[in-house]
Amino acid sequence: MSRFFSSKYAALEPYTPGEQPMDMDRYVKLNTNESPFPPSQKALDYAANNTRTLNLYSDPNSYDLTCAIAKTYGVDKDMVLATNGSDEILNFAFMAFTDQKTPALFADITYGFYPVYAQLNNSAVEIVPLREDFSLNVDDYIGKKGTVFIANPNAPTGTAIPVSEIERLVASDPNRVVVVDEAYVDFGGESSVSLVKKYENVLVCQTFSKSRSFAGGRLGYGIGSKTLISDLNTVKYSTNPYNINSMTSAMGIGILSDPDYTKANCKTIMENRAFTVAGLKKMGFKVLPSSANFIFVSSDRIEGGAYYRSLKEKGVLVRHFDKARISNWCRVSIGTRESMQKYLDVTEQILKERT
Amino acid sequence: MSRFFSSKYAALEPYTPGEQPMDMDRYVKLNTNESPFPPSQKALDYAANNTRTLNLYSDPNSYDLTCAIAKTYGVDKDMVLATNGSDEILNFAFMAFTDQKTPALFADITYGFYPVYAQLNNSAVEIVPLREDFSLNVDDYIGKKGTVFIANPNAPTGTAIPVSEIERLVASDPNRVVVVDEAYVDFGGESSVSLVKKYENVLVCQTFSKSRSFAGGRLGYGIGSKTLISDLNTVKYSTNPYNINSMTSAMGIGILSDPDYTKANCKTIMENRAFTVAGLKKMGFKVLPSSANFIFVSSDRIEGGAYYRSLKEKGVLVRHFDKARISNWCRVSIGTRESMQKYLDVTEQILKERT
Repeated sequence: MSRFFSSKYAALEPYTPGEQPMDMDRYVKLNTNESPFPPSQKALDYAANNTRTLNLYSDPNSYDLTCAIAKTYGVDKDMVLATNGSDEILNFAFMAFTDQKTPALFADITYGFYPVYAQLNNSAVEIVPLREDFSLNVDDYIGKKGTVFIANPNAPTGTAIPVSEIERLVASDPNRVVVVDEAYVDFGGESSVSLVKKYENVLVCQTFSKSRSFAGGRLGYGIGSKTLISDLNTVKYSTNPYNINSMTSAMGIGILSDPDYTKANCKTIMENRAFTVAGLKKMGFKVLPSSANFIFVSSDRIEGGAYYRSLKEKGVLVRHFDKARISNWCRVSIGTRESMQKYLDVTEQILKERT
Repeated sequence: MSRFFSSKYAALEPYTPGEQPMDMDRYVKLNTNESPFPPSQKALDYAANNTRTLNLYSDPNSYDLTCAIAKTYGVDKDMVLATNGSDEILNFAFMAFTDQKTPALFADITYGFYPVYAQLNNSAVEIVPLREDFSLNVDDYIGKKGTVFIANPNAPTGTAIPVSEIERLVASDPNRVVVVDEAYVDFGGESSVSLVKKYENVLVCQTFSKSRSFAGGRLGYGIGSKTLISDLNTVKYSTNPYNINSMTSAMGIGILSDPDYTKANCKTIMENRAFTVAGLKKMGFKVLPSSANFIFVSSDRIEGGAYYRSLKEKGVLVRHFDKARISNWCRVSIGTRESMQKYLDVTEQILKERT
C-alpha cells in the first residue's frame, strides 16, 4: 500500500479468486464452481432481439429483468434487486446492515469474501465456528446480536441445512437481518425465498453464475422484504446506479425463460456428483455430503496441498485453501462426466505413485 | 431508511440519475449526455469472435482489455484499471484516497456523484466554489490539503482547463492525489494522460459511455502511476474482482480498434454543438464555452425550471438541476443535427408563446 492509501484499509486483505491460468486449455478446470454447459440459447436469442441500443445508458432500475426475477419466484418486483454478480448484493448487504455496533456473524469455514467485506466496511465480526463435522447449527447464532450471513449450501463444504432451520433463526429475532447466500441452492439445497413474504428480516441472495451457466455475464440478485430491498437500493444508487449492462440484463431474461434447460443441467451435475463421490469413496476418500456443484474431499493417504499440486501437475485444477482447519481438504467442482472421469483417473494414478 | 439500516449512512442522499422515461420514444432525449450514434460495428464483430465462453467467469484482471487500453495511451498495463463504468473507478478513488483525515476537494458545481461518494465513504469534504463565471482556477486548490477531484471538461458547465494548469496543480504537492475525471475529454478538451508517466500522484478517469457510444455496456477505466493503480486494485479485489463481464470486455477491445469511427463521431458532435450554440445565441441565450458533448444554457427570458418543463411538454428532454446557483440553467446534450434542429425549433416556439 502506498503513502496515498487511506489508513482505514491498513488491515485489508483482498479476496483471492480461483486461479484463471492463461493456458487454461491445458487444464480440466474444476476450481471455480463454474457450469461446464453454455448458457441457454434463449439468452442469446433474447439479447439479439431485446438489447437496448448500447449507446444509451442501461436502465438503472433494470425494470424488465427485475420483473422477470420477481415473476420466477412469485414475489413483488419491489422485493428484488438485481446486481453485478451476487458479490455485489453481498457487499451491499454488508454495507447496509453491518457496522461497528452491528457485527457480521458468519462461520469460520464459509465463503472467503465475507471477512473481506467486513473489513472493507469496517464492520465488527463475530466468527461462529462450524461444528466438529463441518455442520452448521443455527442454535449457535440464536441469542447473539448482529447480522447473520449463512451460505446455504455452504462453501467450500457443500453441506446444506433445511429451510425450517433458517426459519427458526429468522423468527428468533425479528430485529436482526439474516442473509442467506444461495449461490449453490439449485443443486439439491432448499431455498429460503418462501420466507421473504413472511418475515421482514431475511434477505436471500442468488446468482446466474452456477446453475444458469452465466458466470461471464455477471448477474446476481437479492430477494427480500420491501424494507430491506429499499435500503439496499439506497446503497446501490449511492454506489453505481447503472450497475448492470444492457446485454447482461437482456440475457438474464432469456435465461429465466428457459427453466427446463437449467433444471436438466442441474440434474446432470447432480448425477455426475454422485458418480464422482462413488469413485472417490472406493479409493477411501472422505467426502462431505454435498448439495452443491462441488464436493469437499480429503484422504488420509495424501495431504490436501500435495493432492492439489499433484492434480495440477497432471492437468486437473481444483481449489485448496490455505487455512489450518481445512488444509487437508480440496474443493472439486463438478463438471462433465468426461472431466470427472479424468479427475478420478488422475487421482487413482496419484495415489498409486505414492504407494 | 429502515430500523435495520446502518446509522453510518443516516445522512446519505443517493445520486439521482437523469430521467429514463418508460415512454422514451416520445422524446428527443438530450438529458444524459449519451451519444446519438451506435457503437462501432467492430465492437459487435470482435465480441462475436472473442467473447470467452459465458459459463466461465470473466477474467478478473481483464488482461486483454487492459492491454488494449494501455496500448491506446502508450502506457504500461500496470498503469490501467478497467471498471464497471467510470462511476466505479471514481468510487474506488474516493474509497482509497479520501477519509476523515484526507478530505475530498471538489467544486460546488460539478459531477453530482462526488458528494455522494464522499458521504458513502464517510470522507471529509471541502467544497471549492467555481469562480463567478463558472471557471475553475487551480490556484483555489493549491496549498489546501486533501485529494482533488476535477472533472475536465467540467459537468454540467462544459468548460475545460488546459493540461498545463492540471500539471501545475499536480506538481504543487506530490503527496496528495489529483483525480482528473475526463468523461467528456474527447469533444475538445485536453487530456492529462501524459502526466501519469511523470507524476506518481495523478489519476485520470475516462469512459466508453460518451465518445465511444457504449453507455449501455458499462465500461470505464483509470490511468495512473503503478502506485495508485496498485492501491485501486486492492480496493477492487476487496469489492468485486469480476467487475467486468466478458461481453463488455470483448466489445471494449473492438471499439478501441476503430478509433477513426470514434473521431468522426466526435467531429460531428462538435459541429452540431457549434450549430446549436449559434442558434441559441441568435435567440439571446447565454451559453458557457463547451468542450463537452453538452452545453449549459440560460436565458433572461425564461427561468431554468420553466424552460426545462416547457421543453419536456413539447417532447424534448434536457436536464435541470435543483441547485440555487444554477437554477436558471439547463444542461442540453448534443445529439444528431435533426435532434438539435428540433430542440432549437421548440425553444423558439416556447419563447414566442411567452411574449
